[in-house]
Amino acid sequence: MGNGYNVAVVGATGAVGTKMIQMLEQTTLPLKKVILLASKRSAGKTLQFKGASLTVEELVPESFEGIDLALFSAGGGISAKFAPEAVKRGAVVVDNTSHFRMDPEVPLVVPEVNKEALKRHKGIIANPNCSTIQMMVALEPIRKQAGLNRIIVSTYQAVSGAGARAIEELKREAQAYLDNVAVADWHPEILPCGGDKKHYPIAFNALPQIDKFAEEDYTFEEWKMVNETKKIMEDSTIKVAATCVRIPVASGHSESVYVETETPISVATVREILAQAPGVIVEDDPSQQIYPQAIQSIDKKETFVGRIRKDLDIETGLHLWVVSDNLLKGAAWNSVQIAETLHEMDLLHI
Amino acid sequence: MGNGYNVAVVGATGAVGTKMIQMLEQTTLPLKKVILLASKRSAGKTLQFKGASLTVEELVPESFEGIDLALFSAGGGISAKFAPEAVKRGAVVVDNTSHFRMDPEVPLVVPEVNKEALKRHKGIIANPNCSTIQMMVALEPIRKQAGLNRIIVSTYQAVSGAGARAIEELKREAQAYLDNVAVADWHPEILPCGGDKKHYPIAFNALPQIDKFAEEDYTFEEWKMVNETKKIMEDSTIKVAATCVRIPVASGHSESVYVETETPISVATVREILAQAPGVIVEDDPSQQIYPQAIQSIDKKETFVGRIRKDLDIETGLHLWVVSDNLLKGAAWNSVQIAETLHEMDLLHI
Repeated sequence: MGNGYNVAVVGATGAVGTKMIQMLEQTTLPLKKVILLASKRSAGKTLQFKGASLTVEELVPESFEGIDLALFSAGGGISAKFAPEAVKRGAVVVDNTSHFRMDPEVPLVVPEVNKEALKRHKGIIANPNCSTIQMMVALEPIRKQAGLNRIIVSTYQAVSGAGARAIEELKREAQAYLDNVAVADWHPEILPCGGDKKHYPIAFNALPQIDKFAEEDYTFEEWKMVNETKKIMEDSTIKVAATCVRIPVASGHSESVYVETETPISVATVREILAQAPGVIVEDDPSQQIYPQAIQSIDKKETFVGRIRKDLDIETGLHLWVVSDNLLKGAAWNSVQIAETLHEMDLLHI
Repeated sequence: MGNGYNVAVVGATGAVGTKMIQMLEQTTLPLKKVILLASKRSAGKTLQFKGASLTVEELVPESFEGIDLALFSAGGGISAKFAPEAVKRGAVVVDNTSHFRMDPEVPLVVPEVNKEALKRHKGIIANPNCSTIQMMVALEPIRKQAGLNRIIVSTYQAVSGAGARAIEELKREAQAYLDNVAVADWHPEILPCGGDKKHYPIAFNALPQIDKFAEEDYTFEEWKMVNETKKIMEDSTIKVAATCVRIPVASGHSESVYVETETPISVATVREILAQAPGVIVEDDPSQQIYPQAIQSIDKKETFVGRIRKDLDIETGLHLWVVSDNLLKGAAWNSVQIAETLHEMDLLHI
């Protein structure tokens, strides 16, 4: 390992996979070799990595021979089947799908929040859901200072979370709208959720469904925010409620977050501790109309926080507006950052 | 008045004004004459009313001679100056601006909620803010059944609430995005708020500012939701918190609403009472992916409610997704509906 790691990117041609390659181009991690893996359909394509052309190879169990680190983002089914194959061959897996996240044996990590959990890894580390990650980055510094009793979040999520084809669908529908094509003739095929029965227009619309519906009429996306928050913060008593909504934005998730802390905390103190917190940029000056915006977050690794206000009635209540690039901190960057953190902690091995 | 009312539409050429004309075409109110008033700049334009061409006249105090009902939607300054002129000449004014809303002498009315307040009118009745109206229609039946301690709302508001020019701005920017014009070259001029210093892109973005900033770092739009809710529900003790956000939707406001009732109420009961409530259509079947959508609400007078769920932790907590056409129930239809209700209650006179 003295000369660096051999890294595999699984799902290299997808919306997140291509960003993972970008993040690996910038990483501080010593790299020996990078290989790109995808389905048979995508094999043979070439992608650029640091100026060189890499050919995408078909994913098979033997792909992981000699690999030290495998970054997965090719769907839960692929992770379920191939992550154990990678581990069996000695690779550490950072998995961006939901498949292993709630497995008690698998650390679920946002490095700014719970990197200590990496010490318990047995080969697989799970990358949390995009909408959960940015909320954790913004709330952990507040929790450290004043405790956290309760979170109510409403999300404004970008379509890129549903993959590259969803971005194309948004663009196609937006052009149809501008060309005065009737909505009935748009024929959506992906959103709100590729695997679900019905599809609805997203351009000039808002869809209160991300992922499929599950228990209690909450969607899986909403359950992810509830359950992953408790696991990452290692506190099952935090009350979490989520309403997850897709809006016609290509990249950059926004969140309207209400929290109740255990002890009151002033807006000035929140701004101060967030300004010093890792991975956070405070953009909050109402007198100058300064607040985070999805379109400005694109290609940035940080989580942006603004509109920090006290609740008008509850002494411990706070409102915040939290924005981040869902493909970077929400996926590709958090995965590579986990790998960098594993390396720094001398844990990038099984 | 036996043959019907003489009606003036003030601000007839605007986004709301043109919808007021549509609503008057459909009204049950007996009409004798409709006149269209606007600024000098728009005077001379012709608009259709029931197949006839009406010429827009310049608004002057004398415009209201012989007028029984004046619907105002031309900005707060115009209402401040001309509504008293209309009342002086015997007209009842329904004002869609924020100018008179918090005046204790002026009823602020959503007919489904507090039409009794119309009995106290002294010539001017205020139409509430768009985002407040649809929330009141959805919550009043719940409040009647189980009481209401608390509301936390995050809005997903359409650009048409900022006027016809804002819709054009969204379309222009959306086309620029699709044509790969860099965001720095979009040069927004209206949003988030025509009268404020800085303007930001709305296409493929979300802007957590509607109207200017005011006390406690809340925007005026957020304060409207707080204060108007208390006035309409005639209960200053209800806790209300709002985060108001503009999204790239042309028409149709969506709202993620969390409430705590005084006594617990089941989801089944909420669906049942809302299904019977005036002005509400329940669209709520997760098993069939049925929920309200902004793009489907356009040109409809009702408020659509779905995603009705119990909070996971708080016994009295409920989550709802509330959608309505902001130009109709949020503005033009509620104004004409107020006039119809005044007529039915024999109050359409001073």
